[in-house]
Amino acid sequence: MSTPQRGRVLLSVTGFNPQRWYDLLSQERDVVLEPDGAEDPSIDYAVVWKQQPGVLAKLPNLKVIFSIGAGVDHIFNDDQVPDVPIVRVVAENLTQYMCEYVNWRVLDHHRQGALYRTQQTKKVWHEPRQPPANEVSVGIMGLGQLGTRAAEALLALGFSVNGWSRTPKEIDGIASYHGEDGLTPFLNATDILVVLLPLTPATDGIVNYGLLSRLRQDGPLGGPCLINAGRGKLQREADILRALEDGVLKEASLDVFESEPLASESPLWEHPRVFVTPHAAATSDPAHLAPPMLRQMDAFERGEPLENLVDRKAGY
Amino acid sequence: MSTPQRGRVLLSVTGFNPQRWYDLLSQERDVVLEPDGAEDPSIDYAVVWKQQPGVLAKLPNLKVIFSIGAGVDHIFNDDQVPDVPIVRVVAENLTQYMCEYVNWRVLDHHRQGALYRTQQTKKVWHEPRQPPANEVSVGIMGLGQLGTRAAEALLALGFSVNGWSRTPKEIDGIASYHGEDGLTPFLNATDILVVLLPLTPATDGIVNYGLLSRLRQDGPLGGPCLINAGRGKLQREADILRALEDGVLKEASLDVFESEPLASESPLWEHPRVFVTPHAAATSDPAHLAPPMLRQMDAFERGEPLENLVDRKAGY
Ligand SMILES: NC(=O)c1ccc[n+]([C@@H]2O[C@H](COP(=O)([O-])OP(=O)(O)OC[C@H]3O[C@@H](n4cnc5c(N)ncnc54)[C@H](OP(=O)(O)O)[C@@H]3O)[C@@H](O)[C@H]2O)c1
Ligand SMILES: NC(=O)c1ccc[n+]([C@@H]2O[C@H](COP(=O)([O-])OP(=O)(O)OC[C@H]3O[C@@H](n4cnc5c(N)ncnc54)[C@H](OP(=O)(O)O)[C@@H]3O)[C@@H](O)[C@H]2O)c1
Repeated sequence: MSTPQRGRVLLSVTGFNPQRWYDLLSQERDVVLEPDGAEDPSIDYAVVWKQQPGVLAKLPNLKVIFSIGAGVDHIFNDDQVPDVPIVRVVAENLTQYMCEYVNWRVLDHHRQGALYRTQQTKKVWHEPRQPPANEVSVGIMGLGQLGTRAAEALLALGFSVNGWSRTPKEIDGIASYHGEDGLTPFLNATDILVVLLPLTPATDGIVNYGLLSRLRQDGPLGGPCLINAGRGKLQREADILRALEDGVLKEASLDVFESEPLASESPLWEHPRVFVTPHAAATSDPAHLAPPMLRQMDAFERGEPLENLVDRKAGY
Repeated sequence: MSTPQRGRVLLSVTGFNPQRWYDLLSQERDVVLEPDGAEDPSIDYAVVWKQQPGVLAKLPNLKVIFSIGAGVDHIFNDDQVPDVPIVRVVAENLTQYMCEYVNWRVLDHHRQGALYRTQQTKKVWHEPRQPPANEVSVGIMGLGQLGTRAAEALLALGFSVNGWSRTPKEIDGIASYHGEDGLTPFLNATDILVVLLPLTPATDGIVNYGLLSRLRQDGPLGGPCLINAGRGKLQREADILRALEDGVLKEASLDVFESEPLASESPLWEHPRVFVTPHAAATSDPAHLAPPMLRQMDAFERGEPLENLVDRKAGY
């Protein structure tokens, strides 16, 4: 039996070592690692994370771009992305990790972890007033794959949950808001804000001082808390620091930053009410993500539709 | 209309100020605050937290004892507790708080909160290996009101869950063990141990070095973790410290202690891998607990059966 003609794959990655991706994709496909493969007509697919700008535009027969990651903002740093379908990551493994991270951080703010840790260093035995979860509203910006799952788990833990999205949504038990008009009422009803938006021209810098100051200021936790696990450029770090200083914001958990890794000069590292993780909320495990990509390539060659396509106009 | 003869209540509390309890119970019943009410024949009910030993035995017409709290070990410090029904607290509000606490502490051990907090003080941007929740087994000792609810929420977050109880249990999705024979297999399969047992002669000191050394030593977190939110006397603190030192235990979250408040000399306060809270996992809110007690008194006087009765032989 001879293998039929199968599209080759360009792997174009900056910022981390793509060896595991190379190994996994190579089990089924002929894989070319950028900078090899330039202008190669035998390449049908590109699997990318922050590809070198211009590289994709030069592939004469590129048919599909696969994003290594749920977000695709890293692809659009390149202003010459050819007009082919873009597939993003939707994976149980990734969704699971994000659900853990969000629930962990919400509970730590809700149950006053920072206060207890400070008390412990001073050997203080004192119980602060503790509102039950149902008196606390968690507001999730971005009710997509990740936001919806996180919301469901938060509901199961007893929290009140609000959500905000671009288009209207109906999810059992969640008070949902959408669009520009929905933003202020959503924020006004939120004690713990969880940001799980994609980074697009419409969301760039959305987490600024004006937004933070619209969060519920007289809620049961003594001030609102922010959790950003979306993208760093959604936030204005100077504004977050200002809001922490003047009492508009009580605490923050940040997994993503305007520039990563977070510079050692950033005051966020040492801020007693900021919890920093290194963009680790939900790390793509190649062992879970490469096989579905390979299956999509096979399906595409059988003429079947691609799944998890990006809406280029919306930018996510 | 004249009010029919209604049983009076003795409120017998040590260790905290019972004023709110007094106020709430007084809305419907005639309440006598210990040390008043000694040997008073008009008292039908005692509402107690660590009552003065001997006080209950001297009430000639005592009909029911109500425990302020889910646990009743505090009642049995008195060896003259009369042989009347003992009702304990089972309340949604309390169960909710405990569910939050357990999920919070499990997630903090699972998602390596202590490591990230240390990294942050050193401005280290590094992601450790992160096992997903389904690779981590949480083992709950005590599958009662509190343990069962905590287990269900942990399942919803994706954890593998084991449980251990005195009598056999069947709970969807939970691998359950019981009795002496079940203890070692339960421990061997557990990465994060959650203790939600009552304190009885059978459980006193059960969390000792021998028990901790049977927890899974080669699990995905690099060592087992302990969470005790049951009672302090379930644990041997010297053994916990020894297990932390020699690597048998990785981390612990302790809400309860052999002696409370925890003495300032205790090395637990300063241990970098111990998280201390002041018996605050699930605090009884009198506003939620007093009304059901009053309803049970009414029901009892209508000849209806009491709920949430303690099995004196089992001790809980
Ligand atoms: N920190 C990490 O480790 C990590 C890991 C993975 C992903 N992420 C980030 O998480 C993001 C979300 O992932 P996902 O899979 O949940 O994405 P998704 O399924 O595409 O969901 C995105 C959500 O954001 C909403 N949205 C987008 N633009 C909006 C706007 N202008 N106004 C209001 N709502 C808007 C969408 O609204 P509609 O529902 O109306 O479309 C949708 O609800 C990714 O884009 C990525 O940046 C971070
Ligand atoms: N830290 C806090 O703030 C706080 C707050 C409230 C309560 N608590 C503690 O939490 C405890 C549990 O409360 P709960 O309402 O869940 O109690 P529960 O409903 O009576 O459940 C007790 C569980 O422990 C099991 N058990 C008892 N003795 C055992 C033994 N010798 N061997 C094995 N399993 C045994 C029981 O087994 P069976 O199912 O077979 O009977 C049952 O599953 C309370 O007793 C109290 O001490 C702490």
